[in-house]
Amino acid sequence: MKIAIDAMGGDDAPLEVVKGAVQASSDIKGQIILLGLKEKIKTELNKYNYPEDKIEIYHTSQTISMDESPARALRKKKDSSVVVGAKLVKEGRADAFVSAGNTGAVMAAGTLKVGRIQGVKRPAIATVFPGLKGETLVLDVGANADSKPEHLVQQAQMGQIYAKEILHKSNPTVGLLSIGEEAKKGNQLTKETYPKLKELDNINFVGNVEGRDIFTGEYDVILSDGFVGNVVLKTSEGLSSAIFKIIKKEIQASWLSKLGGLLLKPAFNRIKKKMDYTEYGGAPLLGVNGVTIIGHGSSNAKAIANAIKIAEESINVELIDLIKQNINEGTDK
Amino acid sequence: MKIAIDAMGGDDAPLEVVKGAVQASSDIKGQIILLGLKEKIKTELNKYNYPEDKIEIYHTSQTISMDESPARALRKKKDSSVVVGAKLVKEGRADAFVSAGNTGAVMAAGTLKVGRIQGVKRPAIATVFPGLKGETLVLDVGANADSKPEHLVQQAQMGQIYAKEILHKSNPTVGLLSIGEEAKKGNQLTKETYPKLKELDNINFVGNVEGRDIFTGEYDVILSDGFVGNVVLKTSEGLSSAIFKIIKKEIQASWLSKLGGLLLKPAFNRIKKKMDYTEYGGAPLLGVNGVTIIGHGSSNAKAIANAIKIAEESINVELIDLIKQNINEGTDK
Repeated sequence: MKIAIDAMGGDDAPLEVVKGAVQASSDIKGQIILLGLKEKIKTELNKYNYPEDKIEIYHTSQTISMDESPARALRKKKDSSVVVGAKLVKEGRADAFVSAGNTGAVMAAGTLKVGRIQGVKRPAIATVFPGLKGETLVLDVGANADSKPEHLVQQAQMGQIYAKEILHKSNPTVGLLSIGEEAKKGNQLTKETYPKLKELDNINFVGNVEGRDIFTGEYDVILSDGFVGNVVLKTSEGLSSAIFKIIKKEIQASWLSKLGGLLLKPAFNRIKKKMDYTEYGGAPLLGVNGVTIIGHGSSNAKAIANAIKIAEESINVELIDLIKQNINEGTDK
Repeated sequence: MKIAIDAMGGDDAPLEVVKGAVQASSDIKGQIILLGLKEKIKTELNKYNYPEDKIEIYHTSQTISMDESPARALRKKKDSSVVVGAKLVKEGRADAFVSAGNTGAVMAAGTLKVGRIQGVKRPAIATVFPGLKGETLVLDVGANADSKPEHLVQQAQMGQIYAKEILHKSNPTVGLLSIGEEAKKGNQLTKETYPKLKELDNINFVGNVEGRDIFTGEYDVILSDGFVGNVVLKTSEGLSSAIFKIIKKEIQASWLSKLGGLLLKPAFNRIKKKMDYTEYGGAPLLGVNGVTIIGHGSSNAKAIANAIKIAEESINVELIDLIKQNINEGTDK
């Protein structure tokens, strides 16, 4: 088994990526291919003791920056770590591709270079949200800004497989993100999608859910179009960051509150860990014909290591084959 | 000046509504009309000392429950506090209507009974979000689930007036909620709306903003369609509730953390106050031809009192006339 890693992708690449790959290398059974500028990767790798038979370098001469136009980058930079990584998966020379680089470029490379699974209309990015009772997988969080009902139906099929196999939920519940519980509440998209989801007998569809249900952990999979999902993701990041900034500021307000803050430090650390995206190992691009995982731009070594482990697990459970079977069953009907 | 209050609306009505009306009555110059079941309101009012010339009761025989179908309720319950309150405004017998009742019914009564301002295509519900640097007005948060570009343009015009007159922002900045800063990023709606907003010379349009910009307080007005806005509102409520529940639980984990929690109590109370929707006095339904304010279903007395004060301020600054002028200027172009 080989997992290709974009060593040049992310705000702190290649430093954190290489560190994360080294961390993961002792935990996984497969091999790691680090894609990028050979010399830079070598310099980083030389900092560590690592199993040399488990990490190889694959030199690519070009780098796609975080704010580059994805379409243009894909056209112009054929020898970039992102394009070559996707190609290795396409050609069966790697079993998975992990990148914390330019999200749009990774998404496009996944869709166009790795290629869609036959029958899948639009790949979707899925993200794990921490919740009071457990994790909730939300998809799509940005691949597809104007979704159609049939896209959401396929997201339900792909999401429930991921929730079952990777998040270890048995018979995962699937909710449709809307603005009221009743079937007729919502926008045109949710109103058209609801009955289609209701019809599927291989999905444990529980009806509409609302924004406030995302963090209860009561639902395993929540479906939304990519625009709404992306807004939800970024609103959540912004709000939790604002709350912790306010708490930090308030703790500084007096000596007593500073002492209180000190005593609560272990508690806050546990909370941070619970809410920390790096624990969840990146967001899978579901619907492409090979395991493809998109890391957060600010991924640190731990986030990269976790993404690699999720990639390995996805390969082990044969995630892609399961999605293929499920999508094709759905299409046959 | 007369402000009509739906004494029967809200989870804790008429108790909290009457209490809030009594609280507000000494602060405002106008008079309050409490709509609802006379006997019930009287029982509540009798608990307090209040200026009797400032509060009158207007008996209505019917009550719309929180989960009733708005369309049906409006048709069947002509003598409900919601319908009569809207009618009093329509007929000029009240200058504003405040209700924490069934949101859909209040919205429908506002739109159909008070009536839209001439030229306004769709009224919008606006909500104030607390942020690190100040307040941000987000609209629409649920009136209009499938918005069109012209609706968002009118929201920009109405929102900037509200931000200026009620939130006291000079030359308020207006952002369009999307999933990337560039004009071409977003869904079909935002991509079509962006150039239309850019064209307006009476709007301080700053371009696309993202979910994470809602809580920085850096933008005064953020525009979204009602579906997205409602999801954002409920996601935020859900997330902040989850975070504070986790903190509370973690504080209970040990004696030291309990002590820490005790020392931080004043800090947490300040944070709660900062994030408390009851401080912001309900959400105005902008675009209807009379001041109409929708309270949160769980409004307590303070929330009601604040909503009444906002209603008075809206009347004083002649909010409706300002919106009329602005919308008509916009339409003439």
